[in-house]
Amino acid sequence: MERTRTFGWSDPVPVAHAARTESGIAFLKRIAGRDRQQAAPVAECLGFQLVEAEVGKVVFELMPGEHHYNPIGAVHGGVLATLCDSATGAAVHSRLPEGAGYTTLEIKVTFLKAVTVASGLLRCTGTVLQFGSRVAMSEAHVIDANGTLVAHATSTCLILQPKA
Amino acid sequence: MERTRTFGWSDPVPVAHAARTESGIAFLKRIAGRDRQQAAPVAECLGFQLVEAEVGKVVFELMPGEHHYNPIGAVHGGVLATLCDSATGAAVHSRLPEGAGYTTLEIKVTFLKAVTVASGLLRCTGTVLQFGSRVAMSEAHVIDANGTLVAHATSTCLILQPKA
Amino acid sequence: MERTRTFGWSDPVPVAHAARTESGIAFLKRIAGRDRQQAAPVAECLGFQLVEAEVGKVVFELMPGEHHYNPIGAVHGGVLATLCDSATGAAVHSRLPEGAGYTTLEIKVTFLKAVTVASGLLRCTGTVLQFGSRVAMSEAHVIDANGTLVAHATSTCLILQPKA
Amino acid sequence: MERTRTFGWSDPVPVAHAARTESGIAFLKRIAGRDRQQAAPVAECLGFQLVEAEVGKVVFELMPGEHHYNPIGAVHGGVLATLCDSATGAAVHSRLPEGAGYTTLEIKVTFLKAVTVASGLLRCTGTVLQFGSRVAMSEAHVIDANGTLVAHATSTCLILQPKA
Repeated sequence: MERTRTFGWSDPVPVAHAARTESGIAFLKRIAGRDRQQAAPVAECLGFQLVEAEVGKVVFELMPGEHHYNPIGAVHGGVLATLCDSATGAAVHSRLPEGAGYTTLEIKVTFLKAVTVASGLLRCTGTVLQFGSRVAMSEAHVIDANGTLVAHATSTCLILQPKA
Repeated sequence: MERTRTFGWSDPVPVAHAARTESGIAFLKRIAGRDRQQAAPVAECLGFQLVEAEVGKVVFELMPGEHHYNPIGAVHGGVLATLCDSATGAAVHSRLPEGAGYTTLEIKVTFLKAVTVASGLLRCTGTVLQFGSRVAMSEAHVIDANGTLVAHATSTCLILQPKA
Repeated sequence: MERTRTFGWSDPVPVAHAARTESGIAFLKRIAGRDRQQAAPVAECLGFQLVEAEVGKVVFELMPGEHHYNPIGAVHGGVLATLCDSATGAAVHSRLPEGAGYTTLEIKVTFLKAVTVASGLLRCTGTVLQFGSRVAMSEAHVIDANGTLVAHATSTCLILQPKA
Repeated sequence: MERTRTFGWSDPVPVAHAARTESGIAFLKRIAGRDRQQAAPVAECLGFQLVEAEVGKVVFELMPGEHHYNPIGAVHGGVLATLCDSATGAAVHSRLPEGAGYTTLEIKVTFLKAVTVASGLLRCTGTVLQFGSRVAMSEAHVIDANGTLVAHATSTCLILQPKA
């Protein structure tokens, strides 16, 4: 192999535990603060970061690299789907109280423009469309370094309320 | 970081070029034959493989690992989306003649069951629903080691005919 | 206007009440038995019928007519979406016990072939992909009179358990 | 049947022909001008109207009625899907030059809030997300009389260029 990449991560069990023992926004703000011990392993694997988190809105960034490529010469759609899924999920997470959790039911991603290393830094913003006691819907917009919309997604999450 | 993983890949440009200069099924069969020089960089990054390819049907495999985890203790939905997007795209690719290409327009992924390292080897089968001269639709089914359906996807691809 | 169509329906309130006071399959079997007092108003409006109902699987039929046409000379995609949404919802409904209800969270419909009056009778089969205590996923396949797949859909429903 | 409704429509063939012999925006503006001879039959059937059309953006309105109800006491999701599909399609249509056409490949509709006759007049706005030579993506937002977002959709259309 001509190129290699090495990444590391921490035991995800304590992180997942923390995700239920503090409010969503407190948890996300620690990750956005670049506490790398808190980052999701998959974020280290693919190389994306949560960079902003407020209640109801989050931003992730990813710098496209050759290691994201599909066999046909562009960033694999799944990498964009992963970025979108992170943003739609975290937007919902940002509104959860301590003790609550969520799980993603589905996501639809629309690919508006091919992404390559020439696209520059991608910013993916997740926002909540609807937040109820049992279900939440959110959307994500991915823009490239020129501000062009390259992908859009909508997703549905199930909210897991704390046990009484 | 407590855990690390290193992966390698080859220059994707020659692979992408090959993808247009032979029939889709010939290209995919070489990848399925474990010619690692041909594998997509993202497949090395996340650790999934094309294991079967026939005209109109492909199978990918992925062994869930901790490096696929999201911050809430399970395989990130984006990893399943990547697997599905590979399968829906490759199913379409398998029917393309020499000189033709494709690009994915959208994908919807439904997450039916949480996936963890306990799920065992995932098999993702992609099949073509409709194949026309300009557009093709395909679907993917992901089963875990017990044969339980854990994810489903449908996708639309644009077909790029060879220039006359 | 050169053509007219008149349809009738019954007060939907008693029907909606019945939908919660008997099991889903009992309710659906009465509709499938052509008890027109039980049919949904929208089914009378567009002209489609539930013709088969078993636990986990339902079939609806619709004969395409000119009144289903969009401005560009074919059956409007929304008519196919309505047929699919009926089938995905009723498939979930067929598994609900007495007292439970459901609501549809989202649906994605893929249009595989244009439908016109020449397509003949459409049959739309809804089946359950996953049925849990809080959420269910289902899919629908629409075939024309020749057996060609003309549309496919996947949908997510929230299950409303009886109050304790 | 306790209630009845009668609607009329015109032969859709000349309308469909007109749809290809003038620019999309000219065609849509005539419909929005309440030239009922131009309305789609399905719009008469369900009772919705195009009320605004500019290049890249359209608005449809529908007043929810009992004839839109599903068996469980609310407006059928398919009615909202039809409204969304009209808006996403017409938004694309508004940018087509004379001689070009389009066909819808897929739509995903997210249902954010149950709609009943108490929701009042629904307004559905369709906008273009991406417009290329072969494919266009668009989205729709449906709000009720209070301005609450009740549904959202994204859709992909294939563009049919005039024959050279």
